[in-house]
Amino acid sequence: MDIQRINPEQRWSDATVFRGIVHFVEVPARVDGDMADQTRQILAQAEHTLALAGSNKARLLMATIYVTDLTLVPAFNEIWDAWLAPGTAPARACIKVELNKPGMLVEIAFVAAAA
Amino acid sequence: MDIQRINPEQRWSDATVFRGIVHFVEVPARVDGDMADQTRQILAQAEHTLALAGSNKARLLMATIYVTDLTLVPAFNEIWDAWLAPGTAPARACIKVELNKPGMLVEIAFVAAAA
Amino acid sequence: MDIQRINPEQRWSDATVFRGIVHFVEVPARVDGDMADQTRQILAQAEHTLALAGSNKARLLMATIYVTDLTLVPAFNEIWDAWLAPGTAPARACIKVELNKPGMLVEIAFVAAAA
Repeated sequence: MDIQRINPEQRWSDATVFRGIVHFVEVPARVDGDMADQTRQILAQAEHTLALAGSNKARLLMATIYVTDLTLVPAFNEIWDAWLAPGTAPARACIKVELNKPGMLVEIAFVAAAA
Repeated sequence: MDIQRINPEQRWSDATVFRGIVHFVEVPARVDGDMADQTRQILAQAEHTLALAGSNKARLLMATIYVTDLTLVPAFNEIWDAWLAPGTAPARACIKVELNKPGMLVEIAFVAAAA
Repeated sequence: MDIQRINPEQRWSDATVFRGIVHFVEVPARVDGDMADQTRQILAQAEHTLALAGSNKARLLMATIYVTDLTLVPAFNEIWDAWLAPGTAPARACIKVELNKPGMLVEIAFVAAAA
């Protein structure tokens, strides 16, 4: 079994899968909304990407959450906590950086188990 | 063999283990001390987490070190260098960001080999 | 098969390889040049490290690109896009942080498939 790539573009692939490990990054498609809106977009997109990779949100291993404003982390966490089924949370880091699109408040890099 | 989670909370797990790969993140439990103190806390906690995951500090693969002040990296490195047995250092990145708790000077995301 | 380390120093290894997964981080050796120059250095070094790990640039799984100035991302992308063969791009995150050496504009953490 070799490398599977989901929607490979020249600059990045939406996800890569190798030996049962999925790497993928989600950014909000629309950045005009608030943290709750952008978080909901990212998590919905993550479910879609996970499905394409033969995985699902109960199989996350690690999440690196990049935010641009630490005061918005509670708004992020409210959506995040409700999204995860009990007992399925990945390891996670949450740090403040600057992101590559004006208005973007959050970006998440995930590692998941495919199967 | 499927996903093992160490201390799964609703928001995160202390570690996940899948196909022999451990993902975990450590932050200092107490943030009133200086960089040396916070680094010692993190590395002691890392040893504890690694033991729970059936691994140890000689089996680290990657460390992403988030610091809030680059002038404190030498203080971090002094503890880090002494902590690692010769020939066992992981790949590592060390970057300055802002962290999600006032007073927290360092946070580390690790990837390790379980067995 | 256990952990292979490429050029293990006391503080870090240039790469680690375990169960076919390579973790490595590249920084520019010389930081007197512009973004294009520093990017070319990093990507050339990445090819060298990948070769030592029994991999190559068509087998990247994930890239975390740390930059110190978001206005230089287009200059980075121009080199990056030309470097990757079509259909081989990894998942990627690109964030602005501060780096641990004055003049350093970019650092990349990679995950790759060894074999």
